Amino acid sequence: MKRREFIGAAAIGALAASAAAQAQPPRRTYKRIATEEGFLIPEVLDENERIMRAGGPQLMTRGAGVMAQNSIDIGAGRIAKMDADGVDMQLLLLSSPGVQVYDRDKAVALAKLANDRVAAAVKAYPTRLAALTTIAPQDPIEAVKELERGVRTLGLNGVLVNSHTNNEYLDLPKFWPIFEAAEALDAPIYIHPRDPAAGMAQIMTGPVLGGPAFAYGVEVAVHALKLIDAGLFDRFPKLKIVIGHMGESIPFWLQRIDNRFLWSTRTAPSKLKRLPSEYFKANFWVTTSGMNYKAPLMMTIEQLGIDRVLYAIDYPFENQGEAVKFAEAMPLTPAQKMKFFQTNAQSLFKIKTI
Amino acid sequence: MKRREFIGAAAIGALAASAAAQAQPPRRTYKRIATEEGFLIPEVLDENERIMRAGGPQLMTRGAGVMAQNSIDIGAGRIAKMDADGVDMQLLLLSSPGVQVYDRDKAVALAKLANDRVAAAVKAYPTRLAALTTIAPQDPIEAVKELERGVRTLGLNGVLVNSHTNNEYLDLPKFWPIFEAAEALDAPIYIHPRDPAAGMAQIMTGPVLGGPAFAYGVEVAVHALKLIDAGLFDRFPKLKIVIGHMGESIPFWLQRIDNRFLWSTRTAPSKLKRLPSEYFKANFWVTTSGMNYKAPLMMTIEQLGIDRVLYAIDYPFENQGEAVKFAEAMPLTPAQKMKFFQTNAQSLFKIKTI
Repeated sequence: MKRREFIGAAAIGALAASAAAQAQPPRRTYKRIATEEGFLIPEVLDENERIMRAGGPQLMTRGAGVMAQNSIDIGAGRIAKMDADGVDMQLLLLSSPGVQVYDRDKAVALAKLANDRVAAAVKAYPTRLAALTTIAPQDPIEAVKELERGVRTLGLNGVLVNSHTNNEYLDLPKFWPIFEAAEALDAPIYIHPRDPAAGMAQIMTGPVLGGPAFAYGVEVAVHALKLIDAGLFDRFPKLKIVIGHMGESIPFWLQRIDNRFLWSTRTAPSKLKRLPSEYFKANFWVTTSGMNYKAPLMMTIEQLGIDRVLYAIDYPFENQGEAVKFAEAMPLTPAQKMKFFQTNAQSLFKIKTI
Repeated sequence: MKRREFIGAAAIGALAASAAAQAQPPRRTYKRIATEEGFLIPEVLDENERIMRAGGPQLMTRGAGVMAQNSIDIGAGRIAKMDADGVDMQLLLLSSPGVQVYDRDKAVALAKLANDRVAAAVKAYPTRLAALTTIAPQDPIEAVKELERGVRTLGLNGVLVNSHTNNEYLDLPKFWPIFEAAEALDAPIYIHPRDPAAGMAQIMTGPVLGGPAFAYGVEVAVHALKLIDAGLFDRFPKLKIVIGHMGESIPFWLQRIDNRFLWSTRTAPSKLKRLPSEYFKANFWVTTSGMNYKAPLMMTIEQLGIDRVLYAIDYPFENQGEAVKFAEAMPLTPAQKMKFFQTNAQSLFKIKTI
């Protein structure tokens, strides 16, 4: 072969290799763990049906059709969808409002049932599913027991609270044993949205303002800021709280909250040992919950650091395949993607099986 | 002079010129117009005093001490402070909650008085002060008249509403003549924060969550989203609404609101002609209100474009000198600074005298 021909062949070979690389992207070096994924058990929906048949209100709005089928499937069907969409692991949370709309004893029983059921699903697919422990704050003592059973005995990865319970937030002292137990077990508590407490819900209505468009975010931000204001993190400094939707707007407000906190407390000193933002940066982690939008994500990472930001889809309420594509399109470095998609979740939720 | 000496002298000259440049920054090519600056008139505070003496509630919380003195001074003292802090012009707004907490007739009368008083101040310092027309939504017909008098006769630069009035928002049809008049005059309406409507205010309390730390922002965001949800901008497509605090978190939520709006309306179609974010980008302008923080500002500019983002200090509630330094430290290009500090405000509020 003459030298010119050899060079030509090499160039063609390089082109072909380049085309192959374009057709097949480089193998991922990280797993995708989605950390706020919904599930339901039929008995939770049935209780709402029973109440409605007795003339009561519709307490769960997400119980119908394909969404309910996808929520209830915590087996092979869900795994097949994860395979199709490129999701390695889902961290499962009992969908909002979970058991928190039911009578105390019923809620306690349904929480146990949901935890047993989801623990069995995790046991069947230990490399694909993880889950949080549902508790019923209606009964704080039983909630502590169930939290301990979920984390210690069932091997679940933390605790779920679907925000307020009968319009009460967890800043009230009667709920603090829940935080004491969670801190002792190093179990993160995920505060997931639901329709806001009554006073706010009356005002925040309609498809632009009510429900998941805006009101859910206010509800959880209010809950988080109430916990800070109550001095919870002075009492339990190692407590770990997780909230979705990139921090429910708190990263946007972070310096403003400090600024006005200092202004309000210049004449009426606060009992807090630190600034609000210091607690938020020390005790909170945030997930994206399907909000894979560049500008707010970059802002959130700049405000909190990449170690505090976790990937989440909010399946089945968001399109899982799109959520993967959108998240992969974010301008993150390979090292940031490793943390965002995998290692932050592994570390926070003690996921050892992926 | 030998050649080496000549070069040495030139180098020393260059060094000296460089040192002078460092000591004295290059002359600004833009004016600084601050677009959400507070003022009060004594009669508005007096009305609260009168109510309290009669056993009523304290309706204005910002009425005491230096803050009140600085609020009431719309003359030489204010101009001297602006000179000291490097502010070329303040756009004045009657401080929250303004006249909106008083009985209808009293509110109408106080709005007129405030407008006469501030128009006189603007006349005394036409290159340093501009102002918005206070209206009393308690009486929509009188509000329309006063809006027209303020903009046409007094030459004021738009309209001020301190959010809800007796827990009512401007999405109610009885208030729409106000928007009709504002659109006809191409007068922007600034929706400024106050403590939220009753249902929200009960829940959002304390220095971390209540008042200006977080609740004010929710209050105005709720108001803005109610206007969008009501179809106001289909009816008045040229209407211009201004909100502070970099859009009161709406830029953070922008794509999420569209996403869940589409989800909620897939089965219950909306009457809106466009997506919520389209109205927000077409009909809203935002100011910084002293929030000169890099990450949220850059996000807001990326979401809305630099043409929609205006500088504001929120004097006297924020430190004016710091607010100038912080804003100048933002990583904006000279062209962006020109728009942010000056020309966006000139264009939106029709400021011709600077």
